[in-house]
Amino acid sequence: MATLKDVAKETGLTVSTVSRVLNNRGYISADARERVYEAMKRLNYQPNELARSLSKQTTNTIGVIVPHIDHPYFARLLSSLETAAYKSGYKLLLFNSGERDEKEDRYLEMCKGSRVAGIILCSGRVETQCFEGLGVPLVTVERFLESGTAAVECDNRQGGRLAAKHLLERGCRKVVYLGGENEENMPADDRALGFMEVCLREGLEFLDPGREKDAGLYASLDYHSYIEKILEAHPEIDGIFASSDVIAAQVIQICGKKGIRIPEQVKVVGFDDCGLASMTTPSITTIRQPVDEMAQLAVEMLIRANRNELVPSRTTLPVTLIRRETT
Amino acid sequence: MATLKDVAKETGLTVSTVSRVLNNRGYISADARERVYEAMKRLNYQPNELARSLSKQTTNTIGVIVPHIDHPYFARLLSSLETAAYKSGYKLLLFNSGERDEKEDRYLEMCKGSRVAGIILCSGRVETQCFEGLGVPLVTVERFLESGTAAVECDNRQGGRLAAKHLLERGCRKVVYLGGENEENMPADDRALGFMEVCLREGLEFLDPGREKDAGLYASLDYHSYIEKILEAHPEIDGIFASSDVIAAQVIQICGKKGIRIPEQVKVVGFDDCGLASMTTPSITTIRQPVDEMAQLAVEMLIRANRNELVPSRTTLPVTLIRRETT
Repeated sequence: MATLKDVAKETGLTVSTVSRVLNNRGYISADARERVYEAMKRLNYQPNELARSLSKQTTNTIGVIVPHIDHPYFARLLSSLETAAYKSGYKLLLFNSGERDEKEDRYLEMCKGSRVAGIILCSGRVETQCFEGLGVPLVTVERFLESGTAAVECDNRQGGRLAAKHLLERGCRKVVYLGGENEENMPADDRALGFMEVCLREGLEFLDPGREKDAGLYASLDYHSYIEKILEAHPEIDGIFASSDVIAAQVIQICGKKGIRIPEQVKVVGFDDCGLASMTTPSITTIRQPVDEMAQLAVEMLIRANRNELVPSRTTLPVTLIRRETT
Repeated sequence: MATLKDVAKETGLTVSTVSRVLNNRGYISADARERVYEAMKRLNYQPNELARSLSKQTTNTIGVIVPHIDHPYFARLLSSLETAAYKSGYKLLLFNSGERDEKEDRYLEMCKGSRVAGIILCSGRVETQCFEGLGVPLVTVERFLESGTAAVECDNRQGGRLAAKHLLERGCRKVVYLGGENEENMPADDRALGFMEVCLREGLEFLDPGREKDAGLYASLDYHSYIEKILEAHPEIDGIFASSDVIAAQVIQICGKKGIRIPEQVKVVGFDDCGLASMTTPSITTIRQPVDEMAQLAVEMLIRANRNELVPSRTTLPVTLIRRETT
């Protein structure tokens, strides 16, 4: 079987250059890359990452835990994480926790067993104690964890403020925040905070529908009856800030059924700016999370923490209002 | 460091039972599982999958290549694949090809280097020759590949027939099929075939808008101008069969802008039944792919082929019509 040295000999490059091509690290000219790949094919050289990883006791693999792969926000985040990981020469090992505690325990065991370079945890309901003594960096996205290495968030509070200001400018007089989280102390809670802050300051009347703490609601992603109940009890509402585009899409559906015209009678602002926001009719005005940049940062921090560099424990990125048809 | 034998001794179970718990294979009682995990924690035992994999020269990891993670259909498929893999004790290594050829080459190298047990390729535009001489099973979902080990598809032709029959029953007189693929010989092409078959047999007039072979269109997922052009040139159309729910959602948007009422003036049937289909207003009548079962089959075939068992080269699962508000 051909070795790394054989490939170097064949190409006339040094072993370390060939190694950099294989690891997708550092600067490599297009010409060198091509020569290496051609030589690999000719010699049928197959780098054995398992052997390399075993000797290093770590891999260039990142374990990613998401609660719902098929939620449009997490699908987008996952896509951005994969792109960011690829750029840095890392691969993603994917775990869909689906809100099941039992499975999450197993996932962590699997991550540890696979000697991942670190774990990226995306939101969701995971028991905190699971993550103690992991031995690898744990980076969270839109979730804060006492035992986490680094948390990457968007500025949820600013998002809430932007939503309230926009509804105010569009002439709303009585607004409501529809949240769907079932977690304590989620960064997303700050969306409500920023929203109410502006309402109070500007004298915009707002309704507090209480929080739905039903885990089933969050897991099923079906908020129809929750939304319907609130709209029926408060027909005077003319502005809605939904804590996700998924909830905003369901607000559009309920309003459609009740003959409430959007944006004429009720204006709606969502959150996330996932693909869904531009696919509904009317399309959703929303607060855009800079998901590409958040994913890029999360991967970078994981890699740096893995090299024992000090990384910021909390990083917050700004959000922007994307105006569409619901306002 | 504690060994597998130590864990067996501590629990009073046999080494093979402990091993089955760790590999998540075969029948294990809840009690045994719990005892093993407790003992592992007490002894701080950490199974080293890398070492085990190296000695076996394969891993319990499946490489999954999808063209768009954040496309609602692929997000749903990926979620189902992860569930199916988890049940069988396998993990997913995720690759988002994003339609870039250069990246796909690298992905295959990474898969081979990681000694994956096999690869699942989900649709998309990948050069066929890349897959020759892989050395591991290659299972395709909604894509046929000469060099593939096994292909899992839904009955696209039946789906096309169901769509045509439904539009006919709902009183449509002039229908059109809006496809968006840019591939030659994709299983999805049969959707158009089944659709036209029924139209011809039942005397339902149909328009052939020609196929859009623009790769950029498929990559961007933006069909708005394509749909608009067809609706403007043919205002007599009263039934649309869209080859995906994403395209159907865009049909709803264009009709909304043009003041065309759905379902009163135009009826729409989508394909896939991904999450998006029930999130639009009106919600989309669609042809449901049995994605959970397709994913389950794909994983099973990969595992069986990896054990050198003979697996069917092509498996087709039935689809169903899900009636919602667009018809």
